[in-house]
Amino acid sequence: MKSLKVIKIGGNIIDDQKSLDEFLETFTKIEDPKILVHGGGKIASEMARSLDIPVKMFEGRRITDEATLDIITMVYAGKINKTIVAKLQSTNCNALGLTGADGNTIEADKRPVLKIDYGYVGDVKKVNFEIIETLISNNITPVFCAITHNKKGQLLNTNADTIATEIAMAFADSYNVELYYCFEKNGVLNDINNEDSVIEQIDSISFKNLVSEGIIADGMLPKISNCINAVNHNVDKVCIGKHDKLFTNKKGYTTIVK
Amino acid sequence: MKSLKVIKIGGNIIDDQKSLDEFLETFTKIEDPKILVHGGGKIASEMARSLDIPVKMFEGRRITDEATLDIITMVYAGKINKTIVAKLQSTNCNALGLTGADGNTIEADKRPVLKIDYGYVGDVKKVNFEIIETLISNNITPVFCAITHNKKGQLLNTNADTIATEIAMAFADSYNVELYYCFEKNGVLNDINNEDSVIEQIDSISFKNLVSEGIIADGMLPKISNCINAVNHNVDKVCIGKHDKLFTNKKGYTTIVK
Repeated sequence: MKSLKVIKIGGNIIDDQKSLDEFLETFTKIEDPKILVHGGGKIASEMARSLDIPVKMFEGRRITDEATLDIITMVYAGKINKTIVAKLQSTNCNALGLTGADGNTIEADKRPVLKIDYGYVGDVKKVNFEIIETLISNNITPVFCAITHNKKGQLLNTNADTIATEIAMAFADSYNVELYYCFEKNGVLNDINNEDSVIEQIDSISFKNLVSEGIIADGMLPKISNCINAVNHNVDKVCIGKHDKLFTNKKGYTTIVK
Repeated sequence: MKSLKVIKIGGNIIDDQKSLDEFLETFTKIEDPKILVHGGGKIASEMARSLDIPVKMFEGRRITDEATLDIITMVYAGKINKTIVAKLQSTNCNALGLTGADGNTIEADKRPVLKIDYGYVGDVKKVNFEIIETLISNNITPVFCAITHNKKGQLLNTNADTIATEIAMAFADSYNVELYYCFEKNGVLNDINNEDSVIEQIDSISFKNLVSEGIIADGMLPKISNCINAVNHNVDKVCIGKHDKLFTNKKGYTTIVK
């Protein structure tokens, strides 16, 4: 079976030029077919402030009104996505940037209004992997930003972790898929204040134990639930940690297996 | 031989929501494989003003410093391109937005500094049509914005008319290519003040006559030279006029032939 690596980088890498350059240098050397998914970082909020558009958050999540969606589309699909694509091209990685609207690759539903109206936020409905597969079969490296659409003409701000998970799951039946989350910590830590306390491997059973012990909690809970979901849907393994360790043979990150 | 239509829309369509919607409605119905190239319109200049970035022009052409390139990348590749793609997707046209960096589809050289430094402006060097052909063979409709790259990591602001011409010429040996420029006039006019004085057909010989008579002059001269260049490089025909006439069987636009 063919191999595919799906790699998600978060805002902390995007926001730091040196980290981003280092990551892209590592990424371009990965020989397997690969897909990059990137978040947005602080640039969108800075742009909103420059344009006097208020940044509205609820429980740490951005509320996306029309003006905010415009900014997100400009920053994520324009500036960040195309800067990454151009850099990868300079190292002979044949990158091609996408939103979920492009090639109808990712359809989403606008999040229903319940307790709160998140605005133009999408929950992924379907990854149409045929076009993505056509690209990777032609040695193209898709680079997704965190925007999808509802197939009715509406772009939707969509969580980048979820996009990475959904893409990985869409390919899991026909590829050996590995999913990597690059973030600011070494991985899942036994002691949140000790970066050396990385838990090297988590499976469905140890996950439940770690949750009941309160070691996986707060923001890590949905993140690792997402990973467990992926391995339960045929994704071969999910790794989470710092980008400078994940793609070497070094230890120092967390692997989630079934 | 297979057919291909390359269609360029200018800023006057982008700037007017009603015109853009009407155009996209017409565009989506074109059954042949098709490629859309769009200019930028006034949105980039408005954004620059909102961000207090001075708009610098020389002889009607934008000077693209780093801050301006950022804005252009955000507005052209982000807001405009993705809005068009999402709208086309809603009418079942499987659009996919691109800069020349994406898939390394269009390489350009940074314009050399002579009398004036245009900054990050690119002159097209090469259209790599293989990836574009892979897309259209898979029923994808490429939507290009007016940005290319130099393959060394630098995005470059590039004239949309030229991009359309270069794409058309790249396909001309293997496809029956028709190239359409949608702009704000009915076509080439015998009397610049009379929209009913459209010259219906121009070939290389009548072009020279019209230039020597001063009927093709000023901004029309480079535009029509571009068209003549295209038909001299195997593009089957080039049409120029208003979008609501070009794709009907109505008369009222100019066709340029060899």
